[in-house]
Amino acid sequence: MEVYFDHAATTKPFKEVIEKMIDAFEEYGNTSSLHNKGIAAENLVKSSKKIFADILKVDEKEIYFTSGGTESNNWSITGTALANRRNGRHIITSSIEHPSVMNVIKNLETLGLIDEYEITIIPVDKNGLIDLIELKEAIREDTILVSIMHVNNELGTIQPIEEIGQIIKEKNPHTLFHVDGVQSFGKFIIHPNKNNIDLLSVSSHKIHGPKGIGLLYIKEKTKIKPLIFGGNHQRGLRSGTENVPGIVGFSTAAQMMYDHIGKNNAYLVKIKTKLTREILNNIEDVFVNGEEEISAPHILNVRFKNIRSEVLMHTLENSQIYVSTGSACSSNKNSISNTLKAIGLNINQIDESIRFSFSITNTEDEVDYCVEKLKKEVMFLRKYVKGGK
Amino acid sequence: MEVYFDHAATTKPFKEVIEKMIDAFEEYGNTSSLHNKGIAAENLVKSSKKIFADILKVDEKEIYFTSGGTESNNWSITGTALANRRNGRHIITSSIEHPSVMNVIKNLETLGLIDEYEITIIPVDKNGLIDLIELKEAIREDTILVSIMHVNNELGTIQPIEEIGQIIKEKNPHTLFHVDGVQSFGKFIIHPNKNNIDLLSVSSHKIHGPKGIGLLYIKEKTKIKPLIFGGNHQRGLRSGTENVPGIVGFSTAAQMMYDHIGKNNAYLVKIKTKLTREILNNIEDVFVNGEEEISAPHILNVRFKNIRSEVLMHTLENSQIYVSTGSACSSNKNSISNTLKAIGLNINQIDESIRFSFSITNTEDEVDYCVEKLKKEVMFLRKYVKGGK
Repeated sequence: MEVYFDHAATTKPFKEVIEKMIDAFEEYGNTSSLHNKGIAAENLVKSSKKIFADILKVDEKEIYFTSGGTESNNWSITGTALANRRNGRHIITSSIEHPSVMNVIKNLETLGLIDEYEITIIPVDKNGLIDLIELKEAIREDTILVSIMHVNNELGTIQPIEEIGQIIKEKNPHTLFHVDGVQSFGKFIIHPNKNNIDLLSVSSHKIHGPKGIGLLYIKEKTKIKPLIFGGNHQRGLRSGTENVPGIVGFSTAAQMMYDHIGKNNAYLVKIKTKLTREILNNIEDVFVNGEEEISAPHILNVRFKNIRSEVLMHTLENSQIYVSTGSACSSNKNSISNTLKAIGLNINQIDESIRFSFSITNTEDEVDYCVEKLKKEVMFLRKYVKGGK
Repeated sequence: MEVYFDHAATTKPFKEVIEKMIDAFEEYGNTSSLHNKGIAAENLVKSSKKIFADILKVDEKEIYFTSGGTESNNWSITGTALANRRNGRHIITSSIEHPSVMNVIKNLETLGLIDEYEITIIPVDKNGLIDLIELKEAIREDTILVSIMHVNNELGTIQPIEEIGQIIKEKNPHTLFHVDGVQSFGKFIIHPNKNNIDLLSVSSHKIHGPKGIGLLYIKEKTKIKPLIFGGNHQRGLRSGTENVPGIVGFSTAAQMMYDHIGKNNAYLVKIKTKLTREILNNIEDVFVNGEEEISAPHILNVRFKNIRSEVLMHTLENSQIYVSTGSACSSNKNSISNTLKAIGLNINQIDESIRFSFSITNTEDEVDYCVEKLKKEVMFLRKYVKGGK
């Protein structure tokens, strides 16, 4: 049995997604072309935009396609920082953001700006929740942007974005609110207008869509500069020939996720709860990192005391069970997890942590198989550790 | 009969490209994952890199995948401008560059840099060839970058990049040479090392590969900053989960183009020459824009006196013949062509110009059909114009 429990890293495109993409390859025109071939391609993009606009309850004009979540996060931060620098240069984020947010903020200064931006990093508690009181206090008159991820990719922590949006806009209505929705889109209902979100990053390959495509929702009238200039595609804000089959695959996946979102989430909760219970009941000295109950239904982070996560990961791999150590979104393979550090784990504890992440394509049988292997391997590895010491 | 003569705008993916992509969708792992699923995906990326490295005669480590030609051009310019600003802030380009070069250079100042960059724009002659003497004179001690496109997307003009590379490096060995190879890759042999090219932009969808993927060749040790930050994928220079099926489709298309490049080009020359001859021999008052003989084998720009190109384009469209007015790479649909202006055409002449662009998938029968319709429609439209006046 093959068990892929690494769905927060990436997912396999749905069969229907690939089928729609194959059809879209036939409509190969350039959306910028004035003739029928261009118009046919543009119609596919329009239909896809409508799907996203309906899901998010926003206007189609507010949807911009990008090459993925990383570009969307980069664009949100660099684009608003540059467009709003006359209003202020203070940016707020949290200590558990994805590197495509954190590294962009840190690198704003490499843009050679006259004044460096001032960054406030809001800490999180042991469950990964940001401190709302600190957030409120941190917002100033010159705060141009608050960037907070909705669901953390390592812990599954869900930030209360509706409350955060309210806090921001009450304190400073001019402060923009960017939400990295890469891990939450497809699993949660997100309505930017209701939640005071000005910018929302979404990735396709986390929801069984193709890689290389994502979107940025930009609320109308938001001041933002392009990250990528050129032939003025997408209202001049994101140039480059539109990736029509990618867009079609992405919207197909989104539609499939949201058509059954309630049922899907109930199913994910069942899978996650079953795995959590069986690990806790059957294996000694295991600890769930972060909040066990109130967290995303597709992410479970567990610490197996005295077992190095990399060893356990490769041991499970031998049984065709695929899990993750640290964040697989990072190519910096030997770096330690900032998120686990931020919730207070020490280096040893971080090194003992494994992320299991699920999709509706996983089954209860897979959970049983995984637990069976875990029981056996953890016992074996611990004996080996004790014997070796 | 359907005749797509708009291959400089975009191409239909080869059947083999789609087949390879479908296979690659099965290897859905994240290349950053440490387990087998990640390694299998990474191996596909490595094989693709090898294909490009072999074609360009460069090292695999010098190939970086992007979301397309526009991103590659943006990255080349912004990345080198920021990384080399201590050495100088003078950049040289030509008057017929693609908007994804020209608009990036123009927008360097929006990055809020302390000093604005100084830009020299080298003019072109009536055939679109840049003035090499002016280029040589323009290169200074503080010139950090020269960005010149290899084949112009509207005229098919071929710049002598080998000679340009020599001129640059003789005058200032520290000046970087960026070549926008979007229209030339797949049709010309390009060896960056031989031609003194430090950066080369390539797009997939112009060579029957998928949209949404491209590459930037970056010569080892070139000083360049990332455009997109994040999880440090691709040696920290271009973050974001790699679009594995896109990369595989792209390299498949490239391999197919270069496996038969001599034969392909001879065929394209035949198609283009036939269409040129038959238009010139059968229709009065037509003029080839740019150099008729020494230009890219897949692009032909023709002016039909007294006929508005948009009208002719839509008339041909009614016979399922697809051509382009101005550059279809630009979404700014009502803008006039800078390239045609730069070679000295007036607004009326620009408005009478049509681009035909070919691929090896076109046939001689299509040329015959197109000429037959052109003869008829041009005559009809001209009568109408005269009658109306």
